[in-house]
Amino acid sequence: MATPPSDLPEMEYRFVGRSGLQISAISIGGWLTFGGHVDEEKAHAILKAAYDVGINFFDFAEGYAGGESELVAGRAFKKFGWKRNDIVVSTKINWGAATSGREGNLKGINNVGLSRKHIIEGTEAALERLQLSYVDIVYAHRPDRHTPIEESVRAFNHLINTGKALYWGTSEWLASEIEEAWAVADRLGLIGPIVEQPGYSLLRREKVEEEFRHANLYSRRGLGLTIFSPLQGGLLTGKYVDGVPDDSRIAQSDDKYIQSVKAGVGNEAWKKQQESVKGLIKIAEKLGTDVATLSMAWVLKNPDVSSAITGASRPEQIFQTVRAIDVAKKLDEGVLKEIDDVFGNKPAELQKRFG
Amino acid sequence: MATPPSDLPEMEYRFVGRSGLQISAISIGGWLTFGGHVDEEKAHAILKAAYDVGINFFDFAEGYAGGESELVAGRAFKKFGWKRNDIVVSTKINWGAATSGREGNLKGINNVGLSRKHIIEGTEAALERLQLSYVDIVYAHRPDRHTPIEESVRAFNHLINTGKALYWGTSEWLASEIEEAWAVADRLGLIGPIVEQPGYSLLRREKVEEEFRHANLYSRRGLGLTIFSPLQGGLLTGKYVDGVPDDSRIAQSDDKYIQSVKAGVGNEAWKKQQESVKGLIKIAEKLGTDVATLSMAWVLKNPDVSSAITGASRPEQIFQTVRAIDVAKKLDEGVLKEIDDVFGNKPAELQKRFG
Amino acid sequence: MATPPSDLPEMEYRFVGRSGLQISAISIGGWLTFGGHVDEEKAHAILKAAYDVGINFFDFAEGYAGGESELVAGRAFKKFGWKRNDIVVSTKINWGAATSGREGNLKGINNVGLSRKHIIEGTEAALERLQLSYVDIVYAHRPDRHTPIEESVRAFNHLINTGKALYWGTSEWLASEIEEAWAVADRLGLIGPIVEQPGYSLLRREKVEEEFRHANLYSRRGLGLTIFSPLQGGLLTGKYVDGVPDDSRIAQSDDKYIQSVKAGVGNEAWKKQQESVKGLIKIAEKLGTDVATLSMAWVLKNPDVSSAITGASRPEQIFQTVRAIDVAKKLDEGVLKEIDDVFGNKPAELQKRFG
Amino acid sequence: MATPPSDLPEMEYRFVGRSGLQISAISIGGWLTFGGHVDEEKAHAILKAAYDVGINFFDFAEGYAGGESELVAGRAFKKFGWKRNDIVVSTKINWGAATSGREGNLKGINNVGLSRKHIIEGTEAALERLQLSYVDIVYAHRPDRHTPIEESVRAFNHLINTGKALYWGTSEWLASEIEEAWAVADRLGLIGPIVEQPGYSLLRREKVEEEFRHANLYSRRGLGLTIFSPLQGGLLTGKYVDGVPDDSRIAQSDDKYIQSVKAGVGNEAWKKQQESVKGLIKIAEKLGTDVATLSMAWVLKNPDVSSAITGASRPEQIFQTVRAIDVAKKLDEGVLKEIDDVFGNKPAELQKRFG
Repeated sequence: MATPPSDLPEMEYRFVGRSGLQISAISIGGWLTFGGHVDEEKAHAILKAAYDVGINFFDFAEGYAGGESELVAGRAFKKFGWKRNDIVVSTKINWGAATSGREGNLKGINNVGLSRKHIIEGTEAALERLQLSYVDIVYAHRPDRHTPIEESVRAFNHLINTGKALYWGTSEWLASEIEEAWAVADRLGLIGPIVEQPGYSLLRREKVEEEFRHANLYSRRGLGLTIFSPLQGGLLTGKYVDGVPDDSRIAQSDDKYIQSVKAGVGNEAWKKQQESVKGLIKIAEKLGTDVATLSMAWVLKNPDVSSAITGASRPEQIFQTVRAIDVAKKLDEGVLKEIDDVFGNKPAELQKRFG
Repeated sequence: MATPPSDLPEMEYRFVGRSGLQISAISIGGWLTFGGHVDEEKAHAILKAAYDVGINFFDFAEGYAGGESELVAGRAFKKFGWKRNDIVVSTKINWGAATSGREGNLKGINNVGLSRKHIIEGTEAALERLQLSYVDIVYAHRPDRHTPIEESVRAFNHLINTGKALYWGTSEWLASEIEEAWAVADRLGLIGPIVEQPGYSLLRREKVEEEFRHANLYSRRGLGLTIFSPLQGGLLTGKYVDGVPDDSRIAQSDDKYIQSVKAGVGNEAWKKQQESVKGLIKIAEKLGTDVATLSMAWVLKNPDVSSAITGASRPEQIFQTVRAIDVAKKLDEGVLKEIDDVFGNKPAELQKRFG
Repeated sequence: MATPPSDLPEMEYRFVGRSGLQISAISIGGWLTFGGHVDEEKAHAILKAAYDVGINFFDFAEGYAGGESELVAGRAFKKFGWKRNDIVVSTKINWGAATSGREGNLKGINNVGLSRKHIIEGTEAALERLQLSYVDIVYAHRPDRHTPIEESVRAFNHLINTGKALYWGTSEWLASEIEEAWAVADRLGLIGPIVEQPGYSLLRREKVEEEFRHANLYSRRGLGLTIFSPLQGGLLTGKYVDGVPDDSRIAQSDDKYIQSVKAGVGNEAWKKQQESVKGLIKIAEKLGTDVATLSMAWVLKNPDVSSAITGASRPEQIFQTVRAIDVAKKLDEGVLKEIDDVFGNKPAELQKRFG
Repeated sequence: MATPPSDLPEMEYRFVGRSGLQISAISIGGWLTFGGHVDEEKAHAILKAAYDVGINFFDFAEGYAGGESELVAGRAFKKFGWKRNDIVVSTKINWGAATSGREGNLKGINNVGLSRKHIIEGTEAALERLQLSYVDIVYAHRPDRHTPIEESVRAFNHLINTGKALYWGTSEWLASEIEEAWAVADRLGLIGPIVEQPGYSLLRREKVEEEFRHANLYSRRGLGLTIFSPLQGGLLTGKYVDGVPDDSRIAQSDDKYIQSVKAGVGNEAWKKQQESVKGLIKIAEKLGTDVATLSMAWVLKNPDVSSAITGASRPEQIFQTVRAIDVAKKLDEGVLKEIDDVFGNKPAELQKRFG
C-alpha cells in the first residue's frame, strides 16, 4: 500500500460546530468512488492512506452506489481493525439503497424519504452494510418536504436513544428547515442537528456564507459544517479550462448530478467559471501550489467549516490534498482579496460590510 | 398462483395522513377471511396476489379469528421472504386473542382492553404470531372507556420507544377521544395517533365526512384514515337487491357484527338501502363497471382516505378491486352529484355549503 | 390437590384504581407463609387453589421470608405453566432479601431503602427469584425518608421503561408522600403510583377512609388500594376472644410486627377490641356466616378497595375466604350501621356527614 | 492475606449527598497504585483488606495507569465474587485510556473530553475492563470547556437510561459549572450530578468550604463529596518535614501532578506548610495518634464529605486509616480551633461568622 510522503503537514482536527466531537479538517467520502468506478482493492488502499495521514472522518450514504459504497467500507473497517473510537463514521438517509427495495422497483415506496419507517429501517440496513453497531453521525440526506420535520427529529433521536447513532445532522437543508428542526427539538427536549453538509467551494458560496450566517445557525445553534465538493466536481482542478477531456468524470459519468453539470458545458456561466479558474491558476503558481490544492485550502480557511469531504481515485490524491493544510496558512487577507476579485462572487452583504 | 391481468391500473400510494409513511390506496385486511373461512393455501395466494398488484399494506388484529389470521400471515411473510421495508403491517389491540387467555375462559380478564398490561402483552403476542420484530402501525381496536387515555397513549409510545411499533393509531374512536389522545401526547411530549380506522362507505359517511372534519382532525392533527368495509359488508356489491342468497356471508357467518346486519334484513332502512344500490347499479353500467368497483372507487375519491382495506376470498377479487383506481378517475363532479342524489345521505353541512 | 367446592361464588374483578389493570377482589400474598411456616408442597397447593377460584393477583416482596417466598412462587409459576397475561404478580422493594447482602451482615447497606441502586438491583433480584421477566406492579415497601422521592419516582419509571415492571405503587406511605410522588411525576412527565397497599380492616380504618380521602387521592389521582391484613393479623377471626391459644400466630411467630401485637395482649385497647369482635360474632351468626368471612366481606364493601390480600395455611382457607363475595352482598346500610356501632371507630368526618 | 486487627472501629456509612446511595466514610481509590507501582497480588490484598474493614466504595478512572487500574480491579472483583449490590464502583471519564487510542498516539482525538462520543465509548470500555455491566457512579473527570455542558449531561443520562450507570457526578468542576449542569438537567427533566470529587485536605479548603457552600450546592442541590488526597499527596503524613526522602513518591513518581508538587519543594509556601505540619504533629501526639490519621480524621469531621478516598501500598495502611473514625470523635471545637490556628487557612467567611 502507498506510504505517505514524509513532508506532509500534520493533520488538523476541528470540533463539529459547538459539539464535543472532533474530526479531521480533511475527510474522505464514498460518493461516486467506493463501490463505483474504483475497484475494492484500490478503495481500501485509499481508506488506508486516509487513515495513515490522520483522517478520522469517513462519510457515506445509503444512496452512494446503491449501498455498495458502505459495503466496501464495512469490509475495510473489518480488515484494518481500526479501533471504533479512533474513527468517526457517518451515513446519510433519504434516497434508499438499491438492495433494500422490491425487485423490478429500484427503491420501495417507503425506502426513501425521512419518515420514521425509513430513517430507522434505512439506518439499520446501513449499519449492517458498514458492519458497525452505530454510526457517529446520521444525516438527513436532503430535506423531505412531505414528512413533518417533527417526525424526522423524533426518529433521529430514537436512533440516538437506542445507541445506533451518536449525533445527527442534515445535508442541503434550508436554513429555515434547520431552524425548524431545532425549534422542534427544543420544544420536545430532544437533540437537534449538530451539523449540516452542504456543497461549498469557491464557485458556490451563498448558502454557507450568507443564508446560514443570516439565520444565526453558527452563532445561535452552534452548527458545524462538513462540506462536500470543495473542488466543485472537478471544475476547480482546472482540467476543463481548455475544454472537457474525454477521460474526465463529466464526459464519462452517468450520475444525474454530473450529467446536469455536463449540460451546462460551454454556456455563458461555464465560460465565466473557466475564466475565474484561469485567474486562480495564476495565484496558485505564485503560492507555489496547484489550483486544486489552493481551492481546498481556501475552503479550510473558513472557520465555520468543520471538515471538507474529498473523494479520491488513488491514494496519492489524498496525500496531495493534505498539503492544503500548509497552503491555507499562506492565505492572508491580501491573497483572499485577490481570489475574491477573480471570482467576483463574494456574497453581497459580506462585500458591503467588509469591502 | 394467480397472475395479475396485464391491463390492471398501476397501484396508487398515499401518505398516511400527514405522516411520512406511504401505503397503497387499496390494502388487504385479515378480518373474517385468513384463519377463518378461507383455507391457508388460498389465503397465501390472496396475499401474494395483493403484493403482486402493488398492495403494500396488510392489516391484522389480535382479535381476527382469535389470532389465527396473524398466524396465517406470519407463515406467508416467512414463505415469500418479502423485504421488511417493502411492506407495512399493522395489528390492532383490544379484544384479545383466543390463545392468550385461560382455558375455559376464552379471554383472560387482562387479555382485553387498552391497559398498559394488555397493550404491551397483546402486541408482543401478535408479533410472535406474525413472526415479525415490529409492526408498522399498532391500532387501539375500539376505545376502552375505563382505562384512562393517558395510560394507553403512554403504552403505545412505550411500544414505539422499544422498537416494537413505528406508529400508532385508533379504530372507531370518537373524534373527542382522538383529540384527547393528542392533547395527552402534546402535554407529555409523546407521539399521537397518526391514523384512525373507521368504517366508511356510501352507506356510512357521517363519522368520516362530518364528525372528524368538524373536529379539525385532518387539518389540525394531520389524521390519516385506513377505512374498512368500503362495500358495507357486501351490501354495496348489489347481491342483496333481490333478497339474501343462501350462500352469502349474511346468511352464513356467525360473526356478531354480521348477525346484527342480518337482523335488519327486510326492515325499512334495509329496503331504502337496496333501492339506493339499484340506483347505483345504473350509474355503474353507464360508467362501464360494476357496482362494487364503483363503490370502492367512490371511497378512494375522498382525499382524506389513505387506504381502503378490502377482504377477498379469491385472488381474482383483488385484481377486480384494483380496477377501482381507474374508475375513480371517471368520478367527476357530475357523477358524484348523481350518486349523492341516489343515496340522499350526504352529511348535512356539506349539503348546505356545497349544495 | 384440593378442588374448589361447587357452590363458591364467582370471583369478582376490579380495576386497580383508575388504571386499566384488573385484579381479583380477593388476592393472595406471600407474607409469613410461603417460604416460611408453610412447606413448599402446601404453598403450591394454596397457589393452585387460588388460581382455580379465579384469583389472579399474587403479591410478594423481597423481604418476605428473606426472599424465600418469591423463590417458592417462582417454582410454582414454572410448574403450573400459567400464561403470563392471566396473572398479575407484584413484588415490593425496601427491606432487602437475605440472600442479597454480605455474609455476616444480613442486609448490605445498599440492600435496603428506595435508592435508585436498591430499587433497580432489588427488583432484578426479585425477578430472578420469581423466574419472571417482569412484574405487573412493583411497590415501594414503606417510605424511605432519607432518599428524595424524586430519586425513587425516577427509578420506578426506569423499571417501567426497561420493561421490568408495568406499574408501580406504594405501601404504607402517608397521603402527603403519595401526593409528592404524583407531583414529581407530573413535573417530570413520568408515571405516578397507581396503587397504595395499606393495612385496612374493621380495626384500622383511618388511613383508608379519612387520610387518603381527605387528600383526594381517590378522586384526583385515581389511587387504587390493595389492602393487607383484612383480619388484622387474626384478631378478626375471633380466636382470641377467650385468650391467646398456644398454637396461634401471636403465641408462636417471632415476626417483629406480630411480637408488637403480642405485647399489647391484655391491655385496655386489646380488651375493647375483643369486646367488639364478640359483637361482630353475633352479627355474623345472624347473617349465617362466621366472623372472619364477615370481616373480609366488610372490607370488600369499600369501593375504594381494589383487592384484599389474604394469606392461607391450607387451600380450604382460600375457598372459605371467597365466600365473602356472597356475604358482601348482604351488607346493606342497616348491617353496616350495626357494625359501626359495635366497633365505634368510624372516622369522625364520615360520622358527621353521614350520621 | 492480611487480617484486620480486632480493635478497629466499626466502619461508618454516609449517604452520597441527598441521594439514597450509601458509601463508607473511608473509601479506596485506584490512582497511582493499582496497575501502577503496586503489583497485582498486593493490589488484590489491599482491595480485600478494604472490603474486610467495611469499605464498600471503590473509585477508579479510565485515566488511572492508562486503564490498568481498572483491569486489576476487574480481576479482583471476579476473583473475590463479591455481590454486586454490596459494592459501589465508580469510573471517571475524560482523559482516555492508553489502550483505546491509535498506536503511536497515546490518546485518540476523540478518546478524551466529555463529548457524547467519548462519554459513551469511554464508559463502555471501562465497564469491559472492570468486568461489570454497570458502574454505580460515572464521573466527569475534570470539566471539558469546549463541549457544551448540555451534551455531557445528556450523555451521562444516556448511560443511566441504558443501565450502564446508576448515578453521575463531577470531579474538580467549578461551582458555576455544577450549577449549570443542574440547570440543564432541570430544564430537560434529566438527572443532575449527585456528587463532586474535589481534592480536599487541611492544606486545601477553599473549594469545599467556601466556593461550593456559597453556591448553595450542598443545601440546594444536595451535592455529596467524595474527596481525594486527604493527606495532600503525602504532605500531611509529616514525612517531608525534615526534607524529601529518596524513596518518597515526590522523589520517584513521574506523574505530572506529583512533579508539579516537587517543583515547589523548598519555596516559601512549602516551608510554611511544613511548619504547619510540625504543629499538627504536636496536636496528634496529644491525641495519641499520628499526624496522617489526624489529618484523615479532620476531613471526616466535615459533614459535607460523603467519603474520603485513600490510596494504599499495603493492606496495613488501610487498617491504620480506619482508625481515623475513632480519632474524629475526639475532635471537639477546642481541637478544631487549635488546628485552624496552626494552619491559618480557614476560609475567610467562616472565620468572620464563627471566629
